[in-house]
Amino acid sequence: MLNPQRTIDELKELRALTGDDNGAQRVAWTDTWLKAREWMKEKIAGLPVEYERDPAGNVWVTLRGTSEKELLLGGHLDSVPNGGWLDGCLNVMAGIEVLRRIAEEGTPPVTVRVVDWADEEGARFGRSLFGSSACSGFFDPVAIKDYKDKDGITYEQATARVGVDIMRAKEAGAQLKNAKAYLELHIEQGPVLESMGLPLGAVLGTFGVERHSVNFTGQAAHSGSTPMDKRRDALGGVSKLHLEIREIAKRHGGVCTVGRVETKPGIVTSVVAHARMTLDQRHLDADKLAAMYQDAQDASLRFAQEEGIEVEWEYIWRIEPILFHPDLIEMCDQSVLETAGVSHRLPSGPLHDAAEVARAGVPTIMMFVQSLYGISHNKIEDTKEEHLAMSVVALDKLATKAMAWVAGR
Amino acid sequence: MLNPQRTIDELKELRALTGDDNGAQRVAWTDTWLKAREWMKEKIAGLPVEYERDPAGNVWVTLRGTSEKELLLGGHLDSVPNGGWLDGCLNVMAGIEVLRRIAEEGTPPVTVRVVDWADEEGARFGRSLFGSSACSGFFDPVAIKDYKDKDGITYEQATARVGVDIMRAKEAGAQLKNAKAYLELHIEQGPVLESMGLPLGAVLGTFGVERHSVNFTGQAAHSGSTPMDKRRDALGGVSKLHLEIREIAKRHGGVCTVGRVETKPGIVTSVVAHARMTLDQRHLDADKLAAMYQDAQDASLRFAQEEGIEVEWEYIWRIEPILFHPDLIEMCDQSVLETAGVSHRLPSGPLHDAAEVARAGVPTIMMFVQSLYGISHNKIEDTKEEHLAMSVVALDKLATKAMAWVAGR
Repeated sequence: MLNPQRTIDELKELRALTGDDNGAQRVAWTDTWLKAREWMKEKIAGLPVEYERDPAGNVWVTLRGTSEKELLLGGHLDSVPNGGWLDGCLNVMAGIEVLRRIAEEGTPPVTVRVVDWADEEGARFGRSLFGSSACSGFFDPVAIKDYKDKDGITYEQATARVGVDIMRAKEAGAQLKNAKAYLELHIEQGPVLESMGLPLGAVLGTFGVERHSVNFTGQAAHSGSTPMDKRRDALGGVSKLHLEIREIAKRHGGVCTVGRVETKPGIVTSVVAHARMTLDQRHLDADKLAAMYQDAQDASLRFAQEEGIEVEWEYIWRIEPILFHPDLIEMCDQSVLETAGVSHRLPSGPLHDAAEVARAGVPTIMMFVQSLYGISHNKIEDTKEEHLAMSVVALDKLATKAMAWVAGR
Repeated sequence: MLNPQRTIDELKELRALTGDDNGAQRVAWTDTWLKAREWMKEKIAGLPVEYERDPAGNVWVTLRGTSEKELLLGGHLDSVPNGGWLDGCLNVMAGIEVLRRIAEEGTPPVTVRVVDWADEEGARFGRSLFGSSACSGFFDPVAIKDYKDKDGITYEQATARVGVDIMRAKEAGAQLKNAKAYLELHIEQGPVLESMGLPLGAVLGTFGVERHSVNFTGQAAHSGSTPMDKRRDALGGVSKLHLEIREIAKRHGGVCTVGRVETKPGIVTSVVAHARMTLDQRHLDADKLAAMYQDAQDASLRFAQEEGIEVEWEYIWRIEPILFHPDLIEMCDQSVLETAGVSHRLPSGPLHDAAEVARAGVPTIMMFVQSLYGISHNKIEDTKEEHLAMSVVALDKLATKAMAWVAGR
């Protein structure tokens, strides 16, 4: 019988084992991360499952069913440094609990697998979704193997230490051969469900992202000797564009963020010669994302002209919106409704492993559970225990519906 | 006979001796600075003068006159790293040339001294006007002695290495005992004279400065999961205040500059939780400076309220406007008019040693010569040679007038 309280207890146990006063410390490829995985392995001892680690370092727990067709439930045990007690591991441990319930009822109609993705966070090398992208194939080992952490250790060295050859990680793609549906429960990591007073929601898909650095160049000039009308202030471009992208986001119903500003020479006595801002734009609709991107570019040129400065856009990263499967959205919505009495459909702003699985062509859905204060990646990350329990119940209901759906396809 | 071309030649010689491909390297307390001072000492060999270094490290070259009353001509041989070929050393070498001319004509009616101030730039420890403030008494050795340079060397250690005991530097104040007037020639380091097509100008005084850091605090939030209307974006305060202080400056006829912006956590995927901006405000009129400061504070509170964030002001530094002596302004204006056919009176945005001397109660005046492109503190700093020659001539005329004025007081 499904025991949601067990999931909560296990998450607390994991926190005590792998966290400290500053929060969770399960950074991928570290000893603490390996300890968390050993602990998870102990938790499934006695279940009629197979345990395996693939070439990307993802861990697969497989309950064989009558059919080879597979239903996947995914999550990740790794955390950011000083992270929260739920991000990633709720997904895994709720999946394990659902697996226990299914196993208890005998051989399921389809094969059910729980996957613990490797290095979802990318906290150490700045490259998130390592294991899931190795599976989906959207992964270039040559581009990332020489990334260095703050101690100068390369990505390739760090993965090799735990037995993962980064150059062969894409062989993990074979794991998705029989996958017919993928479910992922996750804390929302945002304020939407909390502000609506809702415990759970069905996720429509993950935002597409346009990520750029916008670099303005003016002219350094002494802060005392240069009259206001003789300045070419590079920061003028940043300030105007920052305020404008917030309007652009509201106009198109997306989100736009300036997370970092850098100024050079960056001294109190000089007009700014070079100002750099990061710009992160997200939307679930590809056309609206493109429009937001275009509007920001147009605005930057207009502001550069007004200020007598130059502007240059530097590409950082881009991903298209990834929409989840309509049938699974319906099933998820239904499961939430049955559990909480009310449901809500919302997009996911952050990326998740689910996006990589969807890109690989596997029908995918995510379920969100409310985050308190909308805060994650921080030791104060939290969710009410009653909501955590409801999320395990709703995931279980969804798994039942999805098994039937997979079996019937 | 006055030889302005000699000054230009000497400045080129000094550039070759103490500069490199990146510009002037005469940073105070370094061997290159000491080399420049040795070179200057050679240049005055044979003149009927006394050479002395005071307890703050300032060098005084004294031509005794009939009266003990003194006319001072000042400048500084030290430069910023990668500095220009004129900032500071034009003043010293033009002063030496004027001293040569006066010495050639026999014992002057008053004593004439050229002073090479120590560490005007403050490039290494972030504290400018070292030597002149030690003389004026606006100097607290305890507050600065433990300042460290980027290699961890303290101010006290750096000055001790060249024989200056920072704790006794204020004894240099005795040097001003008989000072009755102080003249300083300087490149403008701004674009005003160039934009008006004028070679020279008489300086009215130095701007008062209000220098603060304005710190806004909002809430870090994920750039994907946080809807625009649920954000508390600390950068919103900075962008609005930056654009507003430019309007405040224009309204009051002063200058306001945001030279540095820092963002925390400062990552592309997070709304800014903490944003810090430096704010430098300058005006020649104390009341208008106070009004600019008040307006900026009011605006920051308004923006903080609009954005749902907090604001805190952190004091960095402040100095009142320092007005030069009206008689000396008249004499300077007249000397410029006689030399260039046209004069202009303007305030000085940057601070100079002259401000410290004026604060000490010595009647003071500065003369500006045009800077090309308004640029200084950079290897491309430049002034037309014909303008340099005119500046030496005008300084010489001013010195003659000032000697008579000092003698008659």
